[in-house]
Amino acid sequence: MINVAVMGYGTVGSGVVEVVDTNGARINQRIGEELNIKYVLDLRDFPGDPVQDKIIHDFETIVNDDDIQIVVEVMGGIEPAYTFVKRCLQAGKSVATSNKALVAKHGAELLSIAKEHNINFLFEASVGGGIPIIRPLNSSLTADEIEEITGILNGTTNYMLTKMFYEGADYDTVLKEAQANGYAERNPEADVEGYDACRKIAILSSLISGQQVDFEDIYCEGITQITVEDMKYAKAMGTTIKLLASSKRTGDRLHAIVAPCMLYPEHPLYNVNDVFNAIFVHGNVLGDAMFYGSGAGKLPTASAVVADVVDAAKHLNRNIMTMWKQDKLTLEDKGDAKRRFFIRMKGDAEKELPNLKYSFGDVEIVKVPELAGEFGFITPVMMEGDYDTRANRYKEQILHMIRIEG
Amino acid sequence: MINVAVMGYGTVGSGVVEVVDTNGARINQRIGEELNIKYVLDLRDFPGDPVQDKIIHDFETIVNDDDIQIVVEVMGGIEPAYTFVKRCLQAGKSVATSNKALVAKHGAELLSIAKEHNINFLFEASVGGGIPIIRPLNSSLTADEIEEITGILNGTTNYMLTKMFYEGADYDTVLKEAQANGYAERNPEADVEGYDACRKIAILSSLISGQQVDFEDIYCEGITQITVEDMKYAKAMGTTIKLLASSKRTGDRLHAIVAPCMLYPEHPLYNVNDVFNAIFVHGNVLGDAMFYGSGAGKLPTASAVVADVVDAAKHLNRNIMTMWKQDKLTLEDKGDAKRRFFIRMKGDAEKELPNLKYSFGDVEIVKVPELAGEFGFITPVMMEGDYDTRANRYKEQILHMIRIEG
Repeated sequence: MINVAVMGYGTVGSGVVEVVDTNGARINQRIGEELNIKYVLDLRDFPGDPVQDKIIHDFETIVNDDDIQIVVEVMGGIEPAYTFVKRCLQAGKSVATSNKALVAKHGAELLSIAKEHNINFLFEASVGGGIPIIRPLNSSLTADEIEEITGILNGTTNYMLTKMFYEGADYDTVLKEAQANGYAERNPEADVEGYDACRKIAILSSLISGQQVDFEDIYCEGITQITVEDMKYAKAMGTTIKLLASSKRTGDRLHAIVAPCMLYPEHPLYNVNDVFNAIFVHGNVLGDAMFYGSGAGKLPTASAVVADVVDAAKHLNRNIMTMWKQDKLTLEDKGDAKRRFFIRMKGDAEKELPNLKYSFGDVEIVKVPELAGEFGFITPVMMEGDYDTRANRYKEQILHMIRIEG
Repeated sequence: MINVAVMGYGTVGSGVVEVVDTNGARINQRIGEELNIKYVLDLRDFPGDPVQDKIIHDFETIVNDDDIQIVVEVMGGIEPAYTFVKRCLQAGKSVATSNKALVAKHGAELLSIAKEHNINFLFEASVGGGIPIIRPLNSSLTADEIEEITGILNGTTNYMLTKMFYEGADYDTVLKEAQANGYAERNPEADVEGYDACRKIAILSSLISGQQVDFEDIYCEGITQITVEDMKYAKAMGTTIKLLASSKRTGDRLHAIVAPCMLYPEHPLYNVNDVFNAIFVHGNVLGDAMFYGSGAGKLPTASAVVADVVDAAKHLNRNIMTMWKQDKLTLEDKGDAKRRFFIRMKGDAEKELPNLKYSFGDVEIVKVPELAGEFGFITPVMMEGDYDTRANRYKEQILHMIRIEG
């Protein structure tokens, strides 16, 4: 029998218990042993709940119980999760977590403690919810240099942008709607400002580079500035707008960024709608691949956590994760990244065109007939630093700039 | 140092050598040891080729060399591949293969020999080329009951159907074009009749059920009967036509089928175009997921083979694959599967409607104005056996039937 402790009986924690209840027979068959949830750690009691007898309030019970071989951490936040996880690993217990904040900040250290003790620190559910991406990067795409990972990594903002694009709704309306049906929190900052996606791309960047990428170093722009007008231009261009979290190799550096981007229909992420997430990967020999699914939600996330528990159970005394070192990777300067830009500008296109051509090169005008007194244009591929310099001359006229992907 | 022998120096075999050359440093880092291709087995010589000194013609050299720990089989076909692979496994050498015919027919036996010897028989490249699907099923989706796998598993036919749909071209023209640019073989039967996709869905069905599914038992219909007219109806209905290979759980049985199907835009496979492949998976707790990428081609396939070699190297004396037993799974009778059907029929819709309603229930008429003397209709959800019985009364009038997915 393999004994497991679950730390945190919130949404994901109760999902983990439900998944083990529902698919226990199949899971035991895959492990070759019986999986038993011995403790559920939470501050609260749950009278009447099936786990009521397993509820404990003291972490020491878990860390001091030699029967516990695997610990699930689904409390969220940095503390006390970090202290608890570290002590479990030091006590020789493998840990599976869905906690992206913890992994983004302390992943390198926790991985190295797990390696020292020949056990595992697994975190499939921390990126992309139920979508397998960490394990494929760790054990499937091992013949490749990963040159790009670009993802739609936040379901809340993707739901909102999908509504705005297909229904022409404005930002405030869709945010209220998302909050009303539980897709967005009352304080939506972590989602709409891109912080959630940023932590996830920091984790993926660390994994593919093998070095620490701090999310604070990644340029991060949310969707709060996206308007009904922007969506009209996007449609006129045959594009859509998605919040992309991206990490691209340029030489020995990575260019990492989180920002709303215009995508053409040929891009595999173009059709990823509603709360779905997807992760596009380009390998130097594999070519293009994409992983798509439910990026959040109780059961999909719990499915990924329990899959990690199964893997930990099958590798009780064998470390299987690729490491990333604690020394920081130098990211490419944001100004050095090359791409095209879409700009909305006040004024008259025909009048401005000669100036714009002089400043930006061979620009392409985009018009939305119903929007009077403004127009849009697309720049050729240029460095973002050069764009900034040139755009500075027009700062009184520029209404909005959105990056173009691909 | 880990010594590898490659059996077969055709497209995939030379790809494997190229991948190891290109990404060797990274691959060695992941294994923690140096990977060395010691032999390349082929009937031919390759004077001037970088591998010329490694070329051998006698299989006995490989099986008798204790230095060889991993063997790559990329010869294709059942014999002599089967005999060679079996002897390698019996000699305690792990095997990685891209050979779907071999895996579909002898997978269960070869997996059990590998398990006996505590080594591995790996075949990621046999389904979906470079797309990771076998390993995710084996080690990521382990908390789930997989209730459905539906894939676009053949790039040639997907390329042809994409051309027919978007360009209105007819079957013979796109086949010639596919042959001219190397996407279809001179004898295209294995692709266009669905046999290739059928072997792949047989492998996936065996994996998710844990029992042997013979491809000969799966109903298989290719794309040779798909016409320009069919595509016009598909467009009128807002659908597209894809060759789907599908396996769905109904109770303790699987319903497996390969057939061209109409798909609505909401389906994740709707936008999978050209030579790309994709595999849709539904798990009982995971929900929907999809894996997308290059389903064939020299380097993507070689990427998957080399990833298997890396996994074999990291698990030299530890069996990691889920088994499937040699006893055959009873598939659900084709007649018992439920779905909607689209039918093209000679005659006049208004005149026939009362009869059709009497026979099929609440049918929906579809018209393509430019196609005179015929019309289309969609049945409600019904068993295929019931459809067959009822359609039999109209067999003189029915021009074509296409199944509707979802």
